[in-house]
Amino acid sequence: MVMTEEAFDVVVVGSCMTDLVSQATRLPKEGETIHGHKFFIGFGGKGANQCIQAARLGAKTAMVCKVGKDFFGDNYLQNFKDNGIHTEFVGQTSVAATGAASIMVNDAGQNAIVIVAGANLVLGSEELQQALPAIRRAKVLVCQLEISPGTSLRALRMAQENNVRTIFNPAPAIAALDPDFYRASDIFCCNESEAELLMGWSVTSVEEAGRTGRELLKRGCGAAIITLGPQGCVVLAAQEPSSPAHHVPTTAVKAVDTTGAGDSFIGALAFYVAHYPTMPLKEMARRANQVAGVSVQTVGTQTSYPSKKDLPADLF
Amino acid sequence: MVMTEEAFDVVVVGSCMTDLVSQATRLPKEGETIHGHKFFIGFGGKGANQCIQAARLGAKTAMVCKVGKDFFGDNYLQNFKDNGIHTEFVGQTSVAATGAASIMVNDAGQNAIVIVAGANLVLGSEELQQALPAIRRAKVLVCQLEISPGTSLRALRMAQENNVRTIFNPAPAIAALDPDFYRASDIFCCNESEAELLMGWSVTSVEEAGRTGRELLKRGCGAAIITLGPQGCVVLAAQEPSSPAHHVPTTAVKAVDTTGAGDSFIGALAFYVAHYPTMPLKEMARRANQVAGVSVQTVGTQTSYPSKKDLPADLF
Repeated sequence: MVMTEEAFDVVVVGSCMTDLVSQATRLPKEGETIHGHKFFIGFGGKGANQCIQAARLGAKTAMVCKVGKDFFGDNYLQNFKDNGIHTEFVGQTSVAATGAASIMVNDAGQNAIVIVAGANLVLGSEELQQALPAIRRAKVLVCQLEISPGTSLRALRMAQENNVRTIFNPAPAIAALDPDFYRASDIFCCNESEAELLMGWSVTSVEEAGRTGRELLKRGCGAAIITLGPQGCVVLAAQEPSSPAHHVPTTAVKAVDTTGAGDSFIGALAFYVAHYPTMPLKEMARRANQVAGVSVQTVGTQTSYPSKKDLPADLF
Repeated sequence: MVMTEEAFDVVVVGSCMTDLVSQATRLPKEGETIHGHKFFIGFGGKGANQCIQAARLGAKTAMVCKVGKDFFGDNYLQNFKDNGIHTEFVGQTSVAATGAASIMVNDAGQNAIVIVAGANLVLGSEELQQALPAIRRAKVLVCQLEISPGTSLRALRMAQENNVRTIFNPAPAIAALDPDFYRASDIFCCNESEAELLMGWSVTSVEEAGRTGRELLKRGCGAAIITLGPQGCVVLAAQEPSSPAHHVPTTAVKAVDTTGAGDSFIGALAFYVAHYPTMPLKEMARRANQVAGVSVQTVGTQTSYPSKKDLPADLF
């Protein structure tokens, strides 16, 4: 078997979705057909989004994922190539269609979304085994929950066994997360609503996020980041004595479209972990916040992710 | 200019839509993201559906429509060719995307739909002028309301001026229909809900449909058909003395998917008008009912439309 000899900064084992976006004045009710004013197709999926953001900042990245042997799959493969992402581990299957997210958006920016994971659920042990040479030599491995949870957990463990740092983003949120995920996460990074589902308590303030972070460390994570949208994030690292919770505020920005902002944050975080492994986590989080803050000032998901050249030099 | 010398049975001036269908247990609420179990892409649009059904029954058909210069447009062009439809007047535009219908369906079969007409709205006078040689030599012209109403009305008039019979299907329903549409319609064919919007009264019974038909003739239609789903339809022809309303019942069938059944009826009606011009309209409607009745017994829209070989010989 011919294997890549390249060493990657960031390997993402995760999802690809084609976003099918319809914009209308309002959302249709059950049984209703309404006319919208715009339709467009975009690239999405949390795994791919995070990989694209890391690549745009200058990380050497590889994506491990599955798309369909169809037009949307071909298109996604090209999108990875256009973004300089290594595609040896982007498989195409004929047993399922490329993941699709039907997104209806009203004029107030509210949406209703149906995600059909399709080919993403076909990604399994065999594909991880093929990607092992790349995972083993990576600086960071990133996983989410838009593929089969068993595959995500296996990938995280594979990385840890090879001393590769792991970032786990438990999204979309599930209440009954396998407790092994906490121990497999060097950095466990979630937003308010994901945290609420995992904790069973409200997470809206910095104080509640701190309490959440301490519980995440107790459950076995190496470090925890709880993002709070415009309130910034809260960072806790287990190796620090008594694990104080650091609040990392953001600078206020005029948000025009927050879609994919969380993925921009995680992708940027992965870049910083790979490139500046000794930087304090709270400083990485501060910079990742700034990157995500740029992404919300432009419409679109991946189209809004900034590249290194668009960002202040002090972020690098 | 090189023009087709062919004479068509049925020319449809109308819409093409790519159906993007997501199936989930339930429909998402505002602000919600849910997981569905199936996603598929289908061919739809009332104009194209009607043309496909007429072609499947053996009519020599041409479609006059506009799609985008994109993957969905290329695909639709191929779909027309695969169904033996003349595509000289299927234009591709780069100013708008191929029409798209985002359809979310729950397990009970209820749906929520956002239609973005896109390229369909670009179809105008210029394209009609190019198609004039084909329209002039056609036996029947069919129009609906998924393109710009002005284009539909112009096409119907163009046909009438050339002694081509017209079938007009005022769908999707609009309350403020230009009254010239009635006079431009040799056969005006609508369903209950379209009739209710046009009349401003309830149309659920055979009696109410008869009253509707008489009003439609009064407004200037040559003949009127009001379809009533499982109750069949009501047919009125102006040339008959005192215009009695004929109720044409259907044979009961086990419906599994009624999507596109109305278009199957109109397409079949166009075929009968073209092939058996002297057949009484109520007999055409009875046969068209039977064709549509076959279509509801299979899932899908165009995929459920029967061909001549699938149907009893006494329908021909």
